[in-house]
Amino acid sequence: MTEQIRPLDVVILAAGQGTRMKSSLPKVLHPVAGRPMVAWAVKTARDLGARNVVVVTGHGAAQVEAALQGSGVVFARQEQQLGTGHAFIQGLDALDDHANADVLVLYGDTPLLRPDTLAALLGDHRARGSAFTVLTGELADATGYGRIIRDEQGNVERIVEQKDATPLERTVREFNSGVYLMDARATDLAHRITNDNASGEYYLTDLLGLYKAEGAEVHAFKLTDPGEVMGANDRTGLAEAESIIRARITQDHMRAGVTIHMPETVYIEDTVQIGRDVTLEPGVILRGDTRIAEGVTVGPYSVITDSTLDEGVTIKAHSVLDGAVVGAGSDVGPFARLRPGTVLAGGVHIGNFVETKNARLAQGVKAGHLAYLGDVEIGEETNVGAGTIVANFDGVNKHRTAVGAGVFIGSNSTLIAPRVIGDAAFIAAGSAVHDDVPEGAMAVARGKQRNLDGWSRRYWGGLREKVQVKLPWLAGWLSRQD
Amino acid sequence: MTEQIRPLDVVILAAGQGTRMKSSLPKVLHPVAGRPMVAWAVKTARDLGARNVVVVTGHGAAQVEAALQGSGVVFARQEQQLGTGHAFIQGLDALDDHANADVLVLYGDTPLLRPDTLAALLGDHRARGSAFTVLTGELADATGYGRIIRDEQGNVERIVEQKDATPLERTVREFNSGVYLMDARATDLAHRITNDNASGEYYLTDLLGLYKAEGAEVHAFKLTDPGEVMGANDRTGLAEAESIIRARITQDHMRAGVTIHMPETVYIEDTVQIGRDVTLEPGVILRGDTRIAEGVTVGPYSVITDSTLDEGVTIKAHSVLDGAVVGAGSDVGPFARLRPGTVLAGGVHIGNFVETKNARLAQGVKAGHLAYLGDVEIGEETNVGAGTIVANFDGVNKHRTAVGAGVFIGSNSTLIAPRVIGDAAFIAAGSAVHDDVPEGAMAVARGKQRNLDGWSRRYWGGLREKVQVKLPWLAGWLSRQD
Amino acid sequence: MTEQIRPLDVVILAAGQGTRMKSSLPKVLHPVAGRPMVAWAVKTARDLGARNVVVVTGHGAAQVEAALQGSGVVFARQEQQLGTGHAFIQGLDALDDHANADVLVLYGDTPLLRPDTLAALLGDHRARGSAFTVLTGELADATGYGRIIRDEQGNVERIVEQKDATPLERTVREFNSGVYLMDARATDLAHRITNDNASGEYYLTDLLGLYKAEGAEVHAFKLTDPGEVMGANDRTGLAEAESIIRARITQDHMRAGVTIHMPETVYIEDTVQIGRDVTLEPGVILRGDTRIAEGVTVGPYSVITDSTLDEGVTIKAHSVLDGAVVGAGSDVGPFARLRPGTVLAGGVHIGNFVETKNARLAQGVKAGHLAYLGDVEIGEETNVGAGTIVANFDGVNKHRTAVGAGVFIGSNSTLIAPRVIGDAAFIAAGSAVHDDVPEGAMAVARGKQRNLDGWSRRYWGGLREKVQVKLPWLAGWLSRQD
Repeated sequence: MTEQIRPLDVVILAAGQGTRMKSSLPKVLHPVAGRPMVAWAVKTARDLGARNVVVVTGHGAAQVEAALQGSGVVFARQEQQLGTGHAFIQGLDALDDHANADVLVLYGDTPLLRPDTLAALLGDHRARGSAFTVLTGELADATGYGRIIRDEQGNVERIVEQKDATPLERTVREFNSGVYLMDARATDLAHRITNDNASGEYYLTDLLGLYKAEGAEVHAFKLTDPGEVMGANDRTGLAEAESIIRARITQDHMRAGVTIHMPETVYIEDTVQIGRDVTLEPGVILRGDTRIAEGVTVGPYSVITDSTLDEGVTIKAHSVLDGAVVGAGSDVGPFARLRPGTVLAGGVHIGNFVETKNARLAQGVKAGHLAYLGDVEIGEETNVGAGTIVANFDGVNKHRTAVGAGVFIGSNSTLIAPRVIGDAAFIAAGSAVHDDVPEGAMAVARGKQRNLDGWSRRYWGGLREKVQVKLPWLAGWLSRQD
Repeated sequence: MTEQIRPLDVVILAAGQGTRMKSSLPKVLHPVAGRPMVAWAVKTARDLGARNVVVVTGHGAAQVEAALQGSGVVFARQEQQLGTGHAFIQGLDALDDHANADVLVLYGDTPLLRPDTLAALLGDHRARGSAFTVLTGELADATGYGRIIRDEQGNVERIVEQKDATPLERTVREFNSGVYLMDARATDLAHRITNDNASGEYYLTDLLGLYKAEGAEVHAFKLTDPGEVMGANDRTGLAEAESIIRARITQDHMRAGVTIHMPETVYIEDTVQIGRDVTLEPGVILRGDTRIAEGVTVGPYSVITDSTLDEGVTIKAHSVLDGAVVGAGSDVGPFARLRPGTVLAGGVHIGNFVETKNARLAQGVKAGHLAYLGDVEIGEETNVGAGTIVANFDGVNKHRTAVGAGVFIGSNSTLIAPRVIGDAAFIAAGSAVHDDVPEGAMAVARGKQRNLDGWSRRYWGGLREKVQVKLPWLAGWLSRQD
Repeated sequence: MTEQIRPLDVVILAAGQGTRMKSSLPKVLHPVAGRPMVAWAVKTARDLGARNVVVVTGHGAAQVEAALQGSGVVFARQEQQLGTGHAFIQGLDALDDHANADVLVLYGDTPLLRPDTLAALLGDHRARGSAFTVLTGELADATGYGRIIRDEQGNVERIVEQKDATPLERTVREFNSGVYLMDARATDLAHRITNDNASGEYYLTDLLGLYKAEGAEVHAFKLTDPGEVMGANDRTGLAEAESIIRARITQDHMRAGVTIHMPETVYIEDTVQIGRDVTLEPGVILRGDTRIAEGVTVGPYSVITDSTLDEGVTIKAHSVLDGAVVGAGSDVGPFARLRPGTVLAGGVHIGNFVETKNARLAQGVKAGHLAYLGDVEIGEETNVGAGTIVANFDGVNKHRTAVGAGVFIGSNSTLIAPRVIGDAAFIAAGSAVHDDVPEGAMAVARGKQRNLDGWSRRYWGGLREKVQVKLPWLAGWLSRQD
């Protein structure tokens, strides 16, 4: 964001209970589009370039603080719920110094408020030399909200709450969002808020009057989209907020050159990076620290978390990737599962019903069908047959296996870790490999075949009744043997 | 529902053909949100506390009656399609006794009509001492519907059909839903309906006039949401009705404390129970007698039918459960398939590409990868290796296998049922276990490994041309061997 | 379509760059609902019964021409981007002969324009004896579009571009779609278009004036749905166009007797044929040359491409089919993958985690679990055990295997191709079959079982510390052995 003239401190009010969530989780920790609501507010503050960010906690304070661990915010606990004015003071008091700073009040349950909107608010506040700016919006019917009452010159006079408003005041469409931007006098003035009212609470709203009483410049800045300050109060509200954020993200990607089929079915978190000419099929889910290079295709219903896909990768339908790196031109799926520690070099082929974990596969490795590759390194061009299992677990420990380049692993083989398979080795299908295999050797570790003639006649003969009911062809064959 | 003063009998008209469905299935049997349309009407009648429920069948009568088998309703067949009045009489005549009862007429193709709405209709009817109450709605344009004509005092005078309405009457916005609630005179009066009209049919609508002629109290009860009586006449209508019911159900769960991501992609039948703080990811489908306890997470695109998930269970993406019980704290999937008879105790781990059927897994069992567990009992803490198959089928019969506690089953093993594996037994990877294994023993049932040195050089040498084209690394290796 | 009196030639303008697509792909090649946008225009022209179809290419001409290879269209390259009038002339000049033909101008980026709409335009044009008919639409606010200016009699007088329009003209709601239908004079008149204007381009719009100047009949034909001519200019536009086409297709199928659950989540290409009483579950994707017979059910999230499903087939959840034929009454899935060359006769059962490729399965074959069947023919009633792999690959070549009828393949078996397994053969579970098996014989190709008593005590004793931490039951057992 733009460099600030004065530092900006942000106080995030996040002490509310949120009983309508019907949850054991504090309201502000309910996730929206991959991030707890309060973390959206913290992110917004950071995006604005805030110097200090204070989060005022109350209900479920320990949980909220734990969730924001490591985010660099300062916590202030509001031990008693004495009103928003009281909460704000706790927040300010948690800062050693906020002289000369602007102070912005945000909320832990309004994840839709855009940093751009607040940057515009900040710009307007400073351009006007305002001491106190309230963020407002306009609704056809603002019932329930505090209304912005202006004087004949159009200057903000006061905020009147719904319950205190006259019939005429109730027709006012401009409402108070509760977001305020103030100069450094906020500390002093906030302490003058009283609870001398019907409910005995300290109302942050009173600050406006206190600034006015000082003769300070008080302004309002009107939102283009009043929906940005709508709080999520129950789970339907969470779903609505998520839907709006989701749509913003998919729209942005589409405008930047990503083809998204049926975008209303696609979920992308805002942490995900996607290159041009990427195609996302219906139902794709992209999460966390996922980076997708140009020209990648992600097939329908694939779920990708914290993974990197290089140029030209194809992920086929119903694949699940988590913590994987997929090299350029590789193809994966359908029904593939790449787990953390999977690193595929370029041109690797992973087919259906294949699982990898802590697996490094070099250029051109193929594992096309029904395999488990765990704790393994595999060299170039090695072919992993269908049904191959790298048995990495001895009951309590996991062991690693190293497979060379140009190895041919026959179908239904088991490599019992720890094992070393030399370059260009050949493993016969159906082998349970319990010794290492030298370079260029063939390993056979299976029984020799014996054919027992006439066996089926005796076997099925003993089951003749059931055969006749269930297997007419076999019953016919059996009768021809008699 | 509230205790009724007078008993309530319900006649459900379900004889229509529904040619616009373009189906070999009778119209009223087309399912909406997991239940044939007519079964929604029966459920509504039951929810209202009806004493008798009569379903009048006609087109596809045998199929309709078969579908409602066991639901406790009485069937009346309308052999000839002589009109709704005639159908109603068939329904009434099927009851031995409905003296002193109120009679409610419902339809087999209006699944959106809520029991709460009808309870309100019933309450209004009784509070007013009404003899005949018609359920009405209001539309901006009611073209096509019969209109409610009221006198100057606002009393219901008559119903006029679209085709018989004057231009002025056609401007009336209040329409007849066809749902009527009547006192016990209905039987007598219904028999007075004549087919003395242009189409020669008996119209149920005529009852209103017959009640009026008796000087009885006739009233209308207006729907809040006229959409509730919209019938589904073709497959787009079915989809719309399903969408509305689906939204009602997901909204109700969200309000009760369930987090649903992208709720417009989630399908939940009304028979499903879900606890607080459950999270449903996009595309989840929950059907039938499914019960989900608090704190469960169901991953994207999972399809769960008739299953029970205990507290804290995690179902990962793309899992399919049917008739399974999953104990507390277990985790399942992704790509798991739990089939009927699966009972997982607590803390069980089922990983990807694992299928269970008639399988009882005790506390702490792990089956992480590519396995088929059919007709088997497995004791505590047993580890089922990747690629394990419990071979339960001999061609015509299925047999059971019992695996003890603390057993280690090596990867790619096959247990050939019927088999008993003792506690703490150890099965070497790649074994085909065809004898029982005693407690604490190790079973090895595989070939011994031989390594044939230099084999690969000869093998690939014979395929040298293709190797050179397809496998550059291997071609290089081969040339270095010469 | 109806037989035409005069031949119809269609010129499709497809030379634009589409910078807002932010793509290396030419704009008109961006796919919508399974077909590049320009191919929609070609299809529309064909559906109208066009004699000649000329596609005028420019940006990415080689790519566009390659994409339309084999579609029978004529290409004209517009080497310099001198305007739509110039492009049109290139198109006309590419035709040897278009005397006596009507000429229709279409665009490569308006995939929503329906053939029916154009047929109506054509009908109107001919009925009126029009020489030049412009397709128009009406919008509440047509800002940005050229407007249709009519004289007092309502006759089309001229088209005025947004930038040249007077304030009054800007209030006109009828806009120019850019689609024109002309008689054979078009060639001559188009050459009279000049670039004597501010931007120095040749505007196709000028044709209208040139026809008027000839005293020819000029008319407008107004679209019922102005949305049909909206072009897709960026990826959000592509998604919107796809959404509309998708909805048209699903609505048409529903009206024709297909039940679609949650149709807004279902994707069906217009090439797909679906019979009556087919049920599609949420999230189904049907592509390409797919034909689905009556009474089929396709489970949720299944993705089916270029496949044929005969009557009464059931495809269960999460199945992926490509180039497969599934015979009547077969059931497939969940989690099945049928690849090209798969032909299932009737009554075949394919279960979970099963892959087939180039596989012909006869009547009644069962492959229920975790199998790979590649390059194989399997006879009637053969039972393929869980974990069976047909190992078809020797490192560079694929080989075929033939399995007879009534064969029982035990679980976890491997058939090493090329192999012939005779009728009624029996393969013991866990066998790696490397020799052919004669009819009626049993093949055993696995190690014999040895049980080593007391082994577990020693093994786990050596791991005692970890066992005590991780496996309490086993630790207990171990301590009881001491």
